[in-house]
Amino acid sequence: MGTVLDKLQDHEALAQMSPKQLEQLAEELRQLITHSVSQTGGHLASNLGIVELTIAMHRAFDFRKDRLLWDVGHQCYTHKILTDRRDLFHKLRQENGLSGFPNPAESVCDVFSVGHAGTSIATALGMALGAQHNKTDEKIVALVGDASIVNGLSFEALNNMGLVKRQMLIVLNDNSMAIDVTQGAMARFLSRVRLSHTYEDLRTTTNRILERMPLLGKRMEEALDNVKKTLRMANSPSRLFESLNIAYFGPVDGHDIISLTQIFKTLASLNRPAILHVYTRKGKGYSPANDDPRKYHSTGPFQVNGSSESETKEDNSYTHVFGEALAELGQKDPRVMAITAAMPDGTGLAAFRQRFADRCFDVGIAESVAVDIAAGMARQGLRPVVCVYSTFLQRSFDQIFQEVSLQNLPVIFCVDRAGVVGSDGPTHHGMLDIGYFRMLPNMVVAAPADAFELKQALALAVEGSLPFAIRYPRDTVPQVPNNTSPYVLGKSCVLRQGTSEYVICALGPIVAEALKAADLLQEQGLSISVINARFAKPIDPALLELFAQGKTVILAEDHGKAAGFGSAVIEEALAAANHRNHAGMCAAIGKAILLGGPDTFVPAAKRSKQLEWMGLTADRLAQTVLDLAKI
Amino acid sequence: MGTVLDKLQDHEALAQMSPKQLEQLAEELRQLITHSVSQTGGHLASNLGIVELTIAMHRAFDFRKDRLLWDVGHQCYTHKILTDRRDLFHKLRQENGLSGFPNPAESVCDVFSVGHAGTSIATALGMALGAQHNKTDEKIVALVGDASIVNGLSFEALNNMGLVKRQMLIVLNDNSMAIDVTQGAMARFLSRVRLSHTYEDLRTTTNRILERMPLLGKRMEEALDNVKKTLRMANSPSRLFESLNIAYFGPVDGHDIISLTQIFKTLASLNRPAILHVYTRKGKGYSPANDDPRKYHSTGPFQVNGSSESETKEDNSYTHVFGEALAELGQKDPRVMAITAAMPDGTGLAAFRQRFADRCFDVGIAESVAVDIAAGMARQGLRPVVCVYSTFLQRSFDQIFQEVSLQNLPVIFCVDRAGVVGSDGPTHHGMLDIGYFRMLPNMVVAAPADAFELKQALALAVEGSLPFAIRYPRDTVPQVPNNTSPYVLGKSCVLRQGTSEYVICALGPIVAEALKAADLLQEQGLSISVINARFAKPIDPALLELFAQGKTVILAEDHGKAAGFGSAVIEEALAAANHRNHAGMCAAIGKAILLGGPDTFVPAAKRSKQLEWMGLTADRLAQTVLDLAKI
Repeated sequence: MGTVLDKLQDHEALAQMSPKQLEQLAEELRQLITHSVSQTGGHLASNLGIVELTIAMHRAFDFRKDRLLWDVGHQCYTHKILTDRRDLFHKLRQENGLSGFPNPAESVCDVFSVGHAGTSIATALGMALGAQHNKTDEKIVALVGDASIVNGLSFEALNNMGLVKRQMLIVLNDNSMAIDVTQGAMARFLSRVRLSHTYEDLRTTTNRILERMPLLGKRMEEALDNVKKTLRMANSPSRLFESLNIAYFGPVDGHDIISLTQIFKTLASLNRPAILHVYTRKGKGYSPANDDPRKYHSTGPFQVNGSSESETKEDNSYTHVFGEALAELGQKDPRVMAITAAMPDGTGLAAFRQRFADRCFDVGIAESVAVDIAAGMARQGLRPVVCVYSTFLQRSFDQIFQEVSLQNLPVIFCVDRAGVVGSDGPTHHGMLDIGYFRMLPNMVVAAPADAFELKQALALAVEGSLPFAIRYPRDTVPQVPNNTSPYVLGKSCVLRQGTSEYVICALGPIVAEALKAADLLQEQGLSISVINARFAKPIDPALLELFAQGKTVILAEDHGKAAGFGSAVIEEALAAANHRNHAGMCAAIGKAILLGGPDTFVPAAKRSKQLEWMGLTADRLAQTVLDLAKI
Repeated sequence: MGTVLDKLQDHEALAQMSPKQLEQLAEELRQLITHSVSQTGGHLASNLGIVELTIAMHRAFDFRKDRLLWDVGHQCYTHKILTDRRDLFHKLRQENGLSGFPNPAESVCDVFSVGHAGTSIATALGMALGAQHNKTDEKIVALVGDASIVNGLSFEALNNMGLVKRQMLIVLNDNSMAIDVTQGAMARFLSRVRLSHTYEDLRTTTNRILERMPLLGKRMEEALDNVKKTLRMANSPSRLFESLNIAYFGPVDGHDIISLTQIFKTLASLNRPAILHVYTRKGKGYSPANDDPRKYHSTGPFQVNGSSESETKEDNSYTHVFGEALAELGQKDPRVMAITAAMPDGTGLAAFRQRFADRCFDVGIAESVAVDIAAGMARQGLRPVVCVYSTFLQRSFDQIFQEVSLQNLPVIFCVDRAGVVGSDGPTHHGMLDIGYFRMLPNMVVAAPADAFELKQALALAVEGSLPFAIRYPRDTVPQVPNNTSPYVLGKSCVLRQGTSEYVICALGPIVAEALKAADLLQEQGLSISVINARFAKPIDPALLELFAQGKTVILAEDHGKAAGFGSAVIEEALAAANHRNHAGMCAAIGKAILLGGPDTFVPAAKRSKQLEWMGLTADRLAQTVLDLAKI
């Protein structure tokens, strides 16, 4: 594909390309990305939207020494292709392939592995302070989207920008997705500005910036004042950012490579932090978006595309089952409210939102306040359901501690993407939630093994009055035969009673694997027991009896071994054994096997492969028991 | 004391008091608070500053049904006295006394137990949405200080205020402490506004609000526009807040009870969120502040007062030892940088800041960005030291995960106030940090037992290249005899080799208690071993050998038992025993005793008492061993 791209050697060659060559380069990049993502899955629209912006940054800066900080980072594909990773691009998001996010292990041009929002300005601030201390002159650029700049972390960084006494550029990539995604004040403010600007306005702004800040270091402060004056408009974001004492430039056209390159070069010579506001069109160059821009804006069909998204759209995913169950509960119980942080579709809230629009709140990428809103609602007697991915809910740990657990309020956490998540990799795995929840008094932590339990857990949480977390993976819901015993708070359930000493006590999605392992072992003449733990907190006292009976217990969970469910069972078993002074129980506790995630980051791969690595698939579970039995 | 206060019955009586009576009431409250805090310790200046503001709120609202949300909450003393807690006020911050923070268990007038910053607007937003859903008409008021409004959580809440379609009032208590505390843009902006306003300006503003918004519901939107127009000034915070689409009123005088009451009543009838900007003087009425306002502003001697603060100012506190050690290291190694979140004194940074002002950064109450700044600096080859209390660092859990642990960057966390903290109680205990750190790959977690180790740990962290947490309590550093073996990453140290099977393996400040326990037991003829674990991660393999030797191991830590150090030791021991197929080791593991915090919140009391409750004092440790030995 693509002759221009084929010939492109490096940063210098890119900097010298003609306008015509650049145009062709952009086209070739779009084709490569679209083709590749259609094979591997990944983020399409956001990447198509910043092809020109990325090219322009790479022309103005040399990111082998200058530093580019991405926010969320799923829009880095053009950057990866331009920085020596074109040959691996067909293995995007795959085992032993390229990460779907920036990754310093792949290239010196990637500075941080990211995937969570709001970090670019914050880490760039730290790097700028570091460069200030080191007295080095690399340029520092943070690229942040309009959806990420509303995050509290972004604001904290903006508020502290005055610490920086050198160059630091924030590029605000405004593709107006926030119009639909959130009703936040910042989003509305930016969208009002956007709607009031014509293409001609953008040209004017661009020219003014270029005309009035022509030369490096030449009366820069004076030039800056001039530019600010000429750009100041009634409705301009300059008001907002200047309240925070950050020089604001823009808005400018994010698809005009030549002008953008010049502006970047100009702003690179400013000896203070500045923000450049750039308009881009998400999905630019992809025909469905061009054919139906309204649909493109309002339904966001390109937010995520390809195979990875379709996995979760299946009717038999945990996410889908949750969504249906919540909508049903909402019908029965008017106290049920839903809150999400920019993930209404990903968390399965569509059905609930459609039926109860006034009981469904999307706060944008702001997980911390999502939890506090829920805490306030719970204090008002309601049953708020917080729908956030496990990894992003880490942002709310302190709110869960103080505003929920300490108050003992009935906030319900529907923790999607718990466990390993497949191709998104380390930034997106949910390997810590049992740990961060179970340390907190009053919390209930449930992990449904199948659709029946997911519905039961949700109903139990809504009926009850305790803070209640329900964790489930990005996966299809398995069938768990005979999983019909009543669903009771803190009670596990024996699914299979074996004759040997071996018991697999599994949590959530691993229960189905454990049953299959039992079948495999039965074929080899070994009869084991399988217990569905159902809860990681409180621990069912019945589990402790397994040790009293001298069983060899394998505790298996799709979560880090450190501080997880198995660890919790052992903590309680030790207390019980000590209390009873029971030597046999002590010996059995010491034989227990913890299976779960390692003390390293699990790389991107298929989820099934990741589970296999952790010993959690049926085959691996069976082998673990066989190894024990042979000894 | 105080005849007016004596006679005060309830909200209605307060509402009907004459100006003269109110003046006397304020005076009596100041005397009561000053006298009481001089006995019990607590927050003096911030409480003296809002006596009138609190009285006015209680006159305009009835907080038995209206809802008042405090931020941080240490300034709630007048509120507590006015809401039936005067008789208990002499037991402030004491065991079985009153909490130093709002506490719903004490009074229906307290809505949330708080102690962390940035929660008031966020939870009030949730309560307002709840009231909107419930169609109830209670008034909702959030009281937030200028230091808390810069927190990312506050911003996320402000950004989502548009969700509220009913009354909700944010009272911004601006006492300009932020001038010294932080150089953040919001603080500078507010202080510029403050400096440009005379007392006459405040009277004018007050009158305009009262004149133009006279009647409930009467063309309220029109009146609102009028007020906004008349208040709009070049330098007004209205610009900032109106960018976020929140109606702004002020600034007004926070010590004028009569006017404030009227303004509150007026704004209570607005059917949309609004912010009232109030100026108060921290420490008002306390003579040292009035005699020397400059000193009062620049040194902040009244930020915290009384016995609780003086504890940590002792030369033999962990905090002090850390501060001296960091200043020394800063001299030796120019890569050492320090970052704190509004706690330069509390975390002992004064010495470092004095010597290396340009290497010391205070970001205000914004723990999340503090960690990201450190991550950026570490990426630049520096050795940033993040100095934040254990409980507040919970705010940074996700940043520690993604921006530090995942990148494997040498950020050093000096985690002060780890463990139980005494009189501040549940909001301030640091019972979770081992758990939230040890789940993360690459992390080192050290817990120094004495001054020698604290210095060694810091030096080791700076020399190394790993993310490194050092946790220590709010306490004096004990002497640990013979604790002289070289301090090596991941190595524990045997302090006493006993002849019995009993071993206390203690972490951090509990090591000294364990040695005393060993002495007590020796007197009774029982010779036990004492091991200083030194690290909670990585776990020293030597600890696992204790189980192979069949010892009975007591794992003792000033941290929650759930997911703590002991739990980590057992996790690793299980893996080792399984690997070796060692029955004796299994039996020994099952005998292990975990000692640490319970799965409930430890109430306020003296730290020594709290340690006793958890079985971590010398007496209790000795008793635990005796109980085991007698069996």
